[in-house]
Amino acid sequence: MIPRYSRPDMVSIWSPETKFRIWFEIEAHATTALADLGVVPKEAAQKVWDEGSKAVFDIERIDEIEREVKHDVIAFLTHLSEIVGPEARFVHQGMTSSDVLDTCLSIQMARAADLLLKDLDGLLAAIKRRAYEHKTTPTIGRSHGIHAEPTTFGIKLAQAYAEFDRCKQRLEAARKEIATCAISGAVGTFANIDPAVEEYVAKQMGLTPEPVSTQVIPRDRHAMFFATLGVIASSVERLATEIRHLQRTEVLEAEEYFSAGQKGSSAMPHKRNPVLTENLTGLARLVRGYVTPALENVALWHERDISHSSVERMIGPDATIVLDFALARLTSVVDKLLVYPENMQKNLDLLGGLVHSQRVLLALTQKGVSREDSYRLVQRNAMPVWRGEGDFLTLLKEDPDVSKALTAEEIEACFNLDYHFKHVDTIFKRVFGE
Amino acid sequence: MIPRYSRPDMVSIWSPETKFRIWFEIEAHATTALADLGVVPKEAAQKVWDEGSKAVFDIERIDEIEREVKHDVIAFLTHLSEIVGPEARFVHQGMTSSDVLDTCLSIQMARAADLLLKDLDGLLAAIKRRAYEHKTTPTIGRSHGIHAEPTTFGIKLAQAYAEFDRCKQRLEAARKEIATCAISGAVGTFANIDPAVEEYVAKQMGLTPEPVSTQVIPRDRHAMFFATLGVIASSVERLATEIRHLQRTEVLEAEEYFSAGQKGSSAMPHKRNPVLTENLTGLARLVRGYVTPALENVALWHERDISHSSVERMIGPDATIVLDFALARLTSVVDKLLVYPENMQKNLDLLGGLVHSQRVLLALTQKGVSREDSYRLVQRNAMPVWRGEGDFLTLLKEDPDVSKALTAEEIEACFNLDYHFKHVDTIFKRVFGE
Amino acid sequence: MIPRYSRPDMVSIWSPETKFRIWFEIEAHATTALADLGVVPKEAAQKVWDEGSKAVFDIERIDEIEREVKHDVIAFLTHLSEIVGPEARFVHQGMTSSDVLDTCLSIQMARAADLLLKDLDGLLAAIKRRAYEHKTTPTIGRSHGIHAEPTTFGIKLAQAYAEFDRCKQRLEAARKEIATCAISGAVGTFANIDPAVEEYVAKQMGLTPEPVSTQVIPRDRHAMFFATLGVIASSVERLATEIRHLQRTEVLEAEEYFSAGQKGSSAMPHKRNPVLTENLTGLARLVRGYVTPALENVALWHERDISHSSVERMIGPDATIVLDFALARLTSVVDKLLVYPENMQKNLDLLGGLVHSQRVLLALTQKGVSREDSYRLVQRNAMPVWRGEGDFLTLLKEDPDVSKALTAEEIEACFNLDYHFKHVDTIFKRVFGE
Amino acid sequence: MIPRYSRPDMVSIWSPETKFRIWFEIEAHATTALADLGVVPKEAAQKVWDEGSKAVFDIERIDEIEREVKHDVIAFLTHLSEIVGPEARFVHQGMTSSDVLDTCLSIQMARAADLLLKDLDGLLAAIKRRAYEHKTTPTIGRSHGIHAEPTTFGIKLAQAYAEFDRCKQRLEAARKEIATCAISGAVGTFANIDPAVEEYVAKQMGLTPEPVSTQVIPRDRHAMFFATLGVIASSVERLATEIRHLQRTEVLEAEEYFSAGQKGSSAMPHKRNPVLTENLTGLARLVRGYVTPALENVALWHERDISHSSVERMIGPDATIVLDFALARLTSVVDKLLVYPENMQKNLDLLGGLVHSQRVLLALTQKGVSREDSYRLVQRNAMPVWRGEGDFLTLLKEDPDVSKALTAEEIEACFNLDYHFKHVDTIFKRVFGE
Repeated sequence: MIPRYSRPDMVSIWSPETKFRIWFEIEAHATTALADLGVVPKEAAQKVWDEGSKAVFDIERIDEIEREVKHDVIAFLTHLSEIVGPEARFVHQGMTSSDVLDTCLSIQMARAADLLLKDLDGLLAAIKRRAYEHKTTPTIGRSHGIHAEPTTFGIKLAQAYAEFDRCKQRLEAARKEIATCAISGAVGTFANIDPAVEEYVAKQMGLTPEPVSTQVIPRDRHAMFFATLGVIASSVERLATEIRHLQRTEVLEAEEYFSAGQKGSSAMPHKRNPVLTENLTGLARLVRGYVTPALENVALWHERDISHSSVERMIGPDATIVLDFALARLTSVVDKLLVYPENMQKNLDLLGGLVHSQRVLLALTQKGVSREDSYRLVQRNAMPVWRGEGDFLTLLKEDPDVSKALTAEEIEACFNLDYHFKHVDTIFKRVFGE
Repeated sequence: MIPRYSRPDMVSIWSPETKFRIWFEIEAHATTALADLGVVPKEAAQKVWDEGSKAVFDIERIDEIEREVKHDVIAFLTHLSEIVGPEARFVHQGMTSSDVLDTCLSIQMARAADLLLKDLDGLLAAIKRRAYEHKTTPTIGRSHGIHAEPTTFGIKLAQAYAEFDRCKQRLEAARKEIATCAISGAVGTFANIDPAVEEYVAKQMGLTPEPVSTQVIPRDRHAMFFATLGVIASSVERLATEIRHLQRTEVLEAEEYFSAGQKGSSAMPHKRNPVLTENLTGLARLVRGYVTPALENVALWHERDISHSSVERMIGPDATIVLDFALARLTSVVDKLLVYPENMQKNLDLLGGLVHSQRVLLALTQKGVSREDSYRLVQRNAMPVWRGEGDFLTLLKEDPDVSKALTAEEIEACFNLDYHFKHVDTIFKRVFGE
Repeated sequence: MIPRYSRPDMVSIWSPETKFRIWFEIEAHATTALADLGVVPKEAAQKVWDEGSKAVFDIERIDEIEREVKHDVIAFLTHLSEIVGPEARFVHQGMTSSDVLDTCLSIQMARAADLLLKDLDGLLAAIKRRAYEHKTTPTIGRSHGIHAEPTTFGIKLAQAYAEFDRCKQRLEAARKEIATCAISGAVGTFANIDPAVEEYVAKQMGLTPEPVSTQVIPRDRHAMFFATLGVIASSVERLATEIRHLQRTEVLEAEEYFSAGQKGSSAMPHKRNPVLTENLTGLARLVRGYVTPALENVALWHERDISHSSVERMIGPDATIVLDFALARLTSVVDKLLVYPENMQKNLDLLGGLVHSQRVLLALTQKGVSREDSYRLVQRNAMPVWRGEGDFLTLLKEDPDVSKALTAEEIEACFNLDYHFKHVDTIFKRVFGE
Repeated sequence: MIPRYSRPDMVSIWSPETKFRIWFEIEAHATTALADLGVVPKEAAQKVWDEGSKAVFDIERIDEIEREVKHDVIAFLTHLSEIVGPEARFVHQGMTSSDVLDTCLSIQMARAADLLLKDLDGLLAAIKRRAYEHKTTPTIGRSHGIHAEPTTFGIKLAQAYAEFDRCKQRLEAARKEIATCAISGAVGTFANIDPAVEEYVAKQMGLTPEPVSTQVIPRDRHAMFFATLGVIASSVERLATEIRHLQRTEVLEAEEYFSAGQKGSSAMPHKRNPVLTENLTGLARLVRGYVTPALENVALWHERDISHSSVERMIGPDATIVLDFALARLTSVVDKLLVYPENMQKNLDLLGGLVHSQRVLLALTQKGVSREDSYRLVQRNAMPVWRGEGDFLTLLKEDPDVSKALTAEEIEACFNLDYHFKHVDTIFKRVFGE
């Protein structure tokens, strides 16, 4: 992933340094377990830990060996033997490369999930703060982009909170799924290595043993992980799209924070563009794009083929780095969002009261007018308002058929905003549990 | 979905009859709840139940009304009023169309999930039966399509079992997520309807209330559902691909059941093609193809737009019907799979013992030969075998450097298959819990 | 595809009737070619044409046979022999089922492309008509959803025209690619059939011979076809999205035609929702969703496997039927689109002249003010306007630094709309060639 | 894209150095055109060329400015003015950032296409060479992974040649589509810049003017480009999959070249795995994964939003770099592929002549036996062979019903391989034109 969309903590999970350090820990723990089983000398296991723990792995040297032997794990083990000495021959006993590679990938994905979960916590906190701030800020609810009925800006944000809270739960499930350890040998039969080694390494590295692996950890786990990231990215897009809409010139109910020195356009200095949320829309497309390759990775041939590897070398870092960046960016956008309640009110008033038509309709039916008649009464007064030929409240009061069913006070009561907000507490309690 | 890939139970979930019956139940339960709240007369609610329960909804009549009013829920309500009489005006009070549509979709998706879960149970049972049947049937494990080390056909199937068991858990989670009820009005504020109605209907219909809806149930739930189906389909593809490989002419370790009257090809009567599993591969592509549209459905505009609807009208039925068909077909394939242990043994012997090279390598290192030297010793005896110039066991015994480290008996011990199967019980216990 | 999104002409291309008729024609032409080569009797070929041409194929009978023999082409040939009599044994000589199936699919896809090309012609005509109608209707151009500079509604439509004209050219190329004929036998070697038969049938059916087939026509051709449909669908989504934006309550520069009897919402009778273009957005997602399965179909195993078949049975009809429907619907939307030039003017004036800031900037630099200074001058007068604290023209005239560079007349000239429209003719000439 | 899958020429197209050089050329050509129009002084335009041509753009300095102004084109122009001096104020007159950015992207994509076309030429040459080498090398053709009829390895490769030749034509079309130039101002009206500037720059940079742009070049062009790459990647996967199959232990008709020093596995030294073609399978998934984001980029809002940008920053380089690498790798694999004709013959003989059953069937029908009877005769002799209970030729000769129709010589003639290869020349002539 390009630096523009990368943050250091997530990048470091995918660095060669981290990878080789995890490889070392897996190999060293396995050697310890083998020593406990009496398969290798305890002193050798200790030597591996002693030398390896203080060593800095020389990535260029490993690369150099790999160019020769064309095999990354052999290259690493060769380098490890340069560090540890002859005791290194007890390392990797009965193991296969994938035992190291796949368990390492599990650890990297689990750590990436941890960062993303932290990101989600930050985002949830920001949304919650702004939701309470605007719990009763009236704004128009829109279906089909058309004014519907009043809601509050806080409810909009409560919806986003509930959605990202679900995302968090999904990611927790996906993290749990991916955090497995496989040290089971060339085809997963433990022919040359006792299952106790896998159990030991799993425990030490915070993983659960893969019940049955086949040289590799089955890729349905990874597919589920990336699919979950794709769903989260889509939720990012949803909130980003909402903000882009709110910042439209004609709407202008909210704006991304615009720093003093920032230039919106080389040509139009007055422009304040929702470039962050537009960017998030694009990033969501990227993360979604990684889902299908991950799904296609599931059907490996027989016990394994290596077609998944190139895909994961790319989408492992790319999907998690982009999503980490996107969640952090969205958090910042929400945190600093400029909200304009006065413009929300202005837009609420735009339709001359038409947004209250549903209430009038209901009031009429409650007075015994049939649904069809009520509908027609409301519609015939709404249409002139729509054409700019009058005010809905006035027209309704002047309509003799409406007046037959409703008094002027009853009609006016239909135009009271508070009516719409009486269940805001209920919704907030459901969402925030408080 | 075309009849060729459809089974009646799943199809019926998506029929107009089922849909209108669910609509009726939602509306009628809501009317009962409104009556309990004193908003509408109890007698009216009773009348709705009485008349509606015994009525058969006339789909052609509803279609006819819809062609006129261009609105499906209004068309249904109009028809309902034809059935119930004037009391029907109390139905749908304070509700919006999506309250009915979205809650109905939740119910249909939950019922579809129930069928798929039942399918998975059937598939798991079939896999388990065959896994135990072939628990110790030796077969070659293959990585990269190349012989690796021995495994058993039962372990192959145990892997499939574990994978589909995970699929089941994922689907249970997705089912739980999708089974929500929204009766919250035009923008989700409960302005015109008490939240108690939603709670009542949810309970009656076996759903949980949607914490915060916005006319619609948020589409991240549906996205997660379809993404989960995409993962399951990919697992179907994996097992199907395995069987296709096993049925290849040169491999022929297993075959799809071939009925007496079946013709494999109009031109080549001897051919027995794995057409069912090839078909499953294609069906998996279809189900995967529905994931991205579902993800794109998440970012609706503001409180809702209706772009998701056409997508769901198609992929709701298509994804669940195809996957139901695929799971049933796969179950049948597994159930009736012709397994040829003798061919498995023949293939195991194909490489003249080369598949035991890893064991020889390990035996050498355990005798103190360095990893690098062991590797070279094994490789120089393996390559002639590969070229068809000898038998691995014989060559090893004749190699003086090998003989320095290993006795003839020790070399022969490396060629014993049982060595590979000593942990089959462990694996089966992990997977099947018994 | 469900009837809701289907039109009869496209549906009929994919009907069993059409399919069997095409099968018959392929078989009958091939028999004629075989007769010309002296392989089968001329009278037999004539009998096949005579009986088959006047026959109505009994689809239920063919289905019945297929249930027995489990092979569709054999079922058809058996039925054909029931119609033609013993001479039918000369039909299909040396051919393989795929010769018929794949060539038939080519014909169906080519015919589907012809309908879609006709759809595009209709859409282009509608766009062109409306583009000329609104060639000089001023409207604000928006980047990032923010007002940028004036343009005309005609230019917007000219862009759409150019885009769909490109789509047409792409589809013509895809149609040409897909229109091939393969009659080459079980693995494409023409072992049992002379290449002259393929050439003859190709010519009769309006196809070109597939240079090298392998029982099947290579699926990269089909992939390119569906990928092209995916691009066209995305262009449909673009224009649909534009209209959805224009119909937003706050913008309201255009609206989908709203028939008298139509109800927008059961709850809010004043609402006129852009449901057709929202629907088109969803349909675009569907068509895009078919691209990846088509791409996954390319890598068939060896000479062929049949995994592509189930995919094509679905996406062949679905993609073409949905896109046909979508293009027709979009044509109708464009054709009847309600355009509100007065609202366009109102929105143009919304920012108090800020949209002319780029021109002022340019005027300043042309008078020798540095780009940086010009930018600052424009920005310091623009920001108060943005905050609703004044009118841009007035503020600029009152700014002493601006006045140093520009006279009042020169400033006013920057606010003249015609300035922006001087190249409309150029653009129209480029797009429409006239 | 990570270095592992990158080649320097393609990487350099996407480097900041190349980008800024192209930006400079666009700006400088535009300034020349403006000077020709008399809008800016000719000396200024000359000064821009003189200073800019010899300058090395300081990427760190540009980045530093961008961090301050948060706008990449302004940062570049500021740096350019540091190089050129005060005359730099005449640069970018009437232009908008996207004029530079989008035209630059067109140039980069066109250059990337040129490299990919060169790659395809290399691949086609390698395939052609091997195709002629194995024009008449007999091998079994397989449908459904099951032996069908004989073909030649040259015909297999001819198919691949024809497929990649189509890919080349598609890429040429996509390259032509993408190579457009837009210098049309903030919303594409040429309000502040004469269309002659666009025409001039287009000509100088080898592009065609975009007929109607809207600040940006319409993204359907880019979508078509990436969709085309997705199709090519799928064809890469097809040939890679073929080779993976051929290298399977049981098949072993071909192998990827295996260098002396290469280790196939840390555990199984005899293994020679098709890791290059497995890798290509994964890379194909990656390139396919970029198609949908590109399709989603088409529907920008109004005249433009910037959501496409982050997507293109990633997939522009990633898709072209990966595909360049994949095509080069595939070329090398084909070029050095180890082909084993003797194993092909061994596999051909595997079924005891069953692959000739279609010919026997045909011979029977040509002697007047009905299709159904012929089928039954062939099938009853084929089934014992399939079960390993005899040799097809012998059984046929011993079958009295067969003998009634065919002499021993006629039966034997059905087993002659040359029969299948009589049209190899025809196929080669069609594919290679010679």
